[in-house]
Amino acid sequence: MQTVYVVSGPAGAGKSTISKALAQTLASSARIEGDVVNHMVAGGYQPPWKSERLLELTWKNIADLSRNFVRSGMDVVIDYVAFPQEIIRLKQRLREQAECKIKYIVLQVKEEELVRRDRLRPASQQMGHRSIELARQFDENGINQKFILDTTEMSEGQVDEICHEILTNDRYTIED
Amino acid sequence: MQTVYVVSGPAGAGKSTISKALAQTLASSARIEGDVVNHMVAGGYQPPWKSERLLELTWKNIADLSRNFVRSGMDVVIDYVAFPQEIIRLKQRLREQAECKIKYIVLQVKEEELVRRDRLRPASQQMGHRSIELARQFDENGINQKFILDTTEMSEGQVDEICHEILTNDRYTIED
Repeated sequence: MQTVYVVSGPAGAGKSTISKALAQTLASSARIEGDVVNHMVAGGYQPPWKSERLLELTWKNIADLSRNFVRSGMDVVIDYVAFPQEIIRLKQRLREQAECKIKYIVLQVKEEELVRRDRLRPASQQMGHRSIELARQFDENGINQKFILDTTEMSEGQVDEICHEILTNDRYTIED
Repeated sequence: MQTVYVVSGPAGAGKSTISKALAQTLASSARIEGDVVNHMVAGGYQPPWKSERLLELTWKNIADLSRNFVRSGMDVVIDYVAFPQEIIRLKQRLREQAECKIKYIVLQVKEEELVRRDRLRPASQQMGHRSIELARQFDENGINQKFILDTTEMSEGQVDEICHEILTNDRYTIED
């Protein structure tokens, strides 16, 4: 059975690095960047934190893409800010149309490290205070600890190790 | 009624420039880059000219995204190499699920101009002989002249004019 991995967490937690490595590890896979799907909207674009309607459309698009990939025999890695309520809706949409397992991984880093990583980005890509705000939103959502993977102490050299953990540890699996 | 614009043609014909400008002109719109959808495939990726199966999956994904955008009241601009047989399949898939009009625009440029434009790109993005091969594939497909828009003589300053032509001229509409 195919698996859909949702790699979530605030900006700077390593979603992009981990999800790319994870997708490359899988023999037959697709990686869906939520930001890319969201930015398909051109005329009338609003950022996800300003338009509930466009955010919901983005999740619908992510779900339909995932379904098509799963039906083609591929595992899927989603790289996007996702809260538990979004995972529940994704699960409902997917389960109606494709048989698959869903794993939910919330990458977490301490605030100081988040700030440090944000400053290392090119100026145009820095999130500034939005990065901390997002991190706090994850805290406030009271996410079940079993989905959290803290990468504060982890270096670039440990990416393979993190992927192995995500692939093999069943605690990230969303139960029925 | 919403319109789905398929902006096609060989690499270097101006698909990216024209489709971006067109999408920005429309009040409520989305732009789908076929290359981006195609490159969602990670493990097991093959380029579209090497895998019929992956190319078909990409078109299915483009159709489902288009349907979701149309149902949300948005016009859609697709930027991708598309031949008439792909437009027919797209039309069938869309018409089953959403009411919309489809316009098909094949941008064309003379070979010398195509080569010149290709050389202006950053080295990593140059298509080289693939660009000419693609252009010839369009010629060989015997595409109905009414869908062709020749941009050989057109400069960057005429982008708005080209958009206006695409928006207002009904000859690009795919008939039932």
